Amino acid sequence: MSGSIRRVLVANRGEIAVRIVHACRELGIETVLAVSEADRDSLGARLADRAVCIGPPRAPQSYLDVARIVTAAVATGCDAVHPGYGFLSESPALARACTEHGLTFVGPTAAQLEAMGDKISARRLAREAGVPTLPGSEQVRTPQEALAVAREVGLPLIVKASAGGGGRGMKVVSDVAELPSVLTTAAAEAAAAFGDPTLYVERFVRNARHVEVQVLGDRHGHVVHLGERDCSLQRRNQKVVEEAPAPGLPLQVRDALHAAAVRLARRIGYESAGTVEFVLDRDTGEFFFLEMNTRIQVEHPVTELVTGIDLVQQQLRVAAGEPLAFGQCDVVHRGHAIECRITAEVPSADFRPDAGRITAWDPPGGPNVRVDTHCVPGYLVPVYYDSLLAKLIVYAPTRAEAIARARSALRRFGIEGVRTTVGFLDFLVGRPEFADATMTTHTIADALGEFAPADAA
Amino acid sequence: MSGSIRRVLVANRGEIAVRIVHACRELGIETVLAVSEADRDSLGARLADRAVCIGPPRAPQSYLDVARIVTAAVATGCDAVHPGYGFLSESPALARACTEHGLTFVGPTAAQLEAMGDKISARRLAREAGVPTLPGSEQVRTPQEALAVAREVGLPLIVKASAGGGGRGMKVVSDVAELPSVLTTAAAEAAAAFGDPTLYVERFVRNARHVEVQVLGDRHGHVVHLGERDCSLQRRNQKVVEEAPAPGLPLQVRDALHAAAVRLARRIGYESAGTVEFVLDRDTGEFFFLEMNTRIQVEHPVTELVTGIDLVQQQLRVAAGEPLAFGQCDVVHRGHAIECRITAEVPSADFRPDAGRITAWDPPGGPNVRVDTHCVPGYLVPVYYDSLLAKLIVYAPTRAEAIARARSALRRFGIEGVRTTVGFLDFLVGRPEFADATMTTHTIADALGEFAPADAA
Repeated sequence: MSGSIRRVLVANRGEIAVRIVHACRELGIETVLAVSEADRDSLGARLADRAVCIGPPRAPQSYLDVARIVTAAVATGCDAVHPGYGFLSESPALARACTEHGLTFVGPTAAQLEAMGDKISARRLAREAGVPTLPGSEQVRTPQEALAVAREVGLPLIVKASAGGGGRGMKVVSDVAELPSVLTTAAAEAAAAFGDPTLYVERFVRNARHVEVQVLGDRHGHVVHLGERDCSLQRRNQKVVEEAPAPGLPLQVRDALHAAAVRLARRIGYESAGTVEFVLDRDTGEFFFLEMNTRIQVEHPVTELVTGIDLVQQQLRVAAGEPLAFGQCDVVHRGHAIECRITAEVPSADFRPDAGRITAWDPPGGPNVRVDTHCVPGYLVPVYYDSLLAKLIVYAPTRAEAIARARSALRRFGIEGVRTTVGFLDFLVGRPEFADATMTTHTIADALGEFAPADAA
Repeated sequence: MSGSIRRVLVANRGEIAVRIVHACRELGIETVLAVSEADRDSLGARLADRAVCIGPPRAPQSYLDVARIVTAAVATGCDAVHPGYGFLSESPALARACTEHGLTFVGPTAAQLEAMGDKISARRLAREAGVPTLPGSEQVRTPQEALAVAREVGLPLIVKASAGGGGRGMKVVSDVAELPSVLTTAAAEAAAAFGDPTLYVERFVRNARHVEVQVLGDRHGHVVHLGERDCSLQRRNQKVVEEAPAPGLPLQVRDALHAAAVRLARRIGYESAGTVEFVLDRDTGEFFFLEMNTRIQVEHPVTELVTGIDLVQQQLRVAAGEPLAFGQCDVVHRGHAIECRITAEVPSADFRPDAGRITAWDPPGGPNVRVDTHCVPGYLVPVYYDSLLAKLIVYAPTRAEAIARARSALRRFGIEGVRTTVGFLDFLVGRPEFADATMTTHTIADALGEFAPADAA
């Protein structure tokens, strides 16, 4: 790469650390992987040019510690920090600390992270950019305020934490009598999880699809979108299966979604890869802004497979100050991609996380089957972090072929030593609601009762 | 797959056997791999549903023995035979024996194999289809006939075997005085290699590019093309690096090439995947038909990466009688793909083949890097077969990025135990003639002197 980045500290772990190392390698950028004591021997550590231990296994003393990460970057001569997803990826404090130490933060500015990190502020910005938002409130301080909003927007409604995201601290209210107690509980949860009890309420969409638009901006005012993803298959607000494009969207809705996402990104001069999330009301066909994720997302590969554009490399290029090398009409969408998140969980025990040593690891191969993972035979799945083992991403010219390819690949995926969701994913992508693209955000909850895992037989 | 094929005998070895097994798996087709005694423990044998030994290591008693292959297919309850490339892939005898035993031959008809296998007949068919051929002869029986042709088309000219292909038995003649002795030698070589001494002569193009067009036909008269590939980087008429699309072709030349290939395929009612090869004269811009390969080619993945279409699956689908599921304008070309053939050869010793046990095998990973291979750590490279270890295929939005990705991936490719062409390939794709797309079929021979292998240091 011709830019100003020569050595990157990868401040993350798991599959995304491996992914970032690959992207840096291809751009001729050296990598230093920040590892906790639990990840010293990880695949990412072996693939990076160098690994540096930043602390004990528990994330608050390692992957969530801004000072340790900045110190590690400076000490190893890095000129940039890539935060991946989760952990400190949306932390204005890390972005600011990087700037103060002369490091390039591979992401948007601290001000952009703050504007979108505060969900009440993000809602306001969306409205100002002409992006539809759900009827709802600014900050609600008292049950009285919430009741007034409820009268205006109707029931059901959803209480959300302003500092939240990713589904934590959300509560659906169907009966006004519950409202006061829900507010108390939600505020306590938000304070515990995010250090901020601020809440707001929105209309709750019962039959909802989750559709999101990938945007990419550079530091010269140029913003493009890379199409949308459908991530409706969720379990407890966590995405499980994602795909691109979103099937069955009317063309004018699709175009309107893309345009809305680009308007919002342009409004804040957004200068990295980001995702604008929307809820689609299946009953009315309307869409509404949910939030913007100001980082690379777990499901970014489906967009890579249908556009041919490497998003992590684009993040690095724009962070180095390069202008985008293509315009909107150069982004060519082709075919269909599906991602399945394979986690170490026990479906038959309410998805209790599993840990332990992977004794056999035999991912499927062949063209158009991509496995992003940090797992290798003998890998010890640590108990400290989330349970994502691998992302299986398949591409095919049509959605029906992509579904067939995903199922075939899942059935060939050989994993022993830990229990996984592979069988559950095969069940899921084989569901009729998925085949005919009528899935909603409650499809998994509704279908769960019919799942007969092999491990329960 | 909904078709009539349920179990396929894979009558090949190496990376293409693995490739075919993957394609069958995804279509729900069972596989039986025909293996020689040397390939009993190969990766393909492990991945297939079953392996069946068809004879001793030497190919004439195993992979080239029609009777053994048909017997193995019948004995294992297969209903189809996929011949891969090389070996019996273009054998009318195998196609006919399959038909006689109620087996589907995954390829064109025996008559189509014969029409294109005889290069004099192929030239005639091309002319009849309005496809430009090089000035030259039908069969030449005597030096006098050859001299008459030489006076007509001029020098240099090239003597070729009618039963040939793949570069064997070809001789360039720059001086008429050499002609009689060259004819004698070439006829003897052709008789030895193909059992047929028939020769013909053509004008020889000095500054030539090799460009070929992928076609695909079904059994219902529908033929499409999937664009072209440039395979000019050759060593002794063997392709070394291939790419799609062919860089720097004027649009009208590109369109004319595609149209010519489809005309030829339609003329013979071609009903499988095939490749029409052309020589492009760099000095005049003209193109001429060379030959048609009536099978899957080694370099097919570059076309798969730029079109998103799985060619081996398409072969199986059309062999099962399915009509093509797409038309010409549904084939969307995007980005650029480059394939490097990694062989077990010693570049510093005139590419002498190497054999032995692979002690370390660490292929590069990451998105848009595909490695088609049968090698695993501990694999013993047998001495009996060709020296192809792996195909490294990379994709990127632009050609410059694809070149950078190929070099980066080659440098990460870790192989120990046998000597390979990895370093030579890195040198090749780094050549200025490749960067500016001015390479010809003699670029490798011209550049060889500048290659300073690391193993000679």
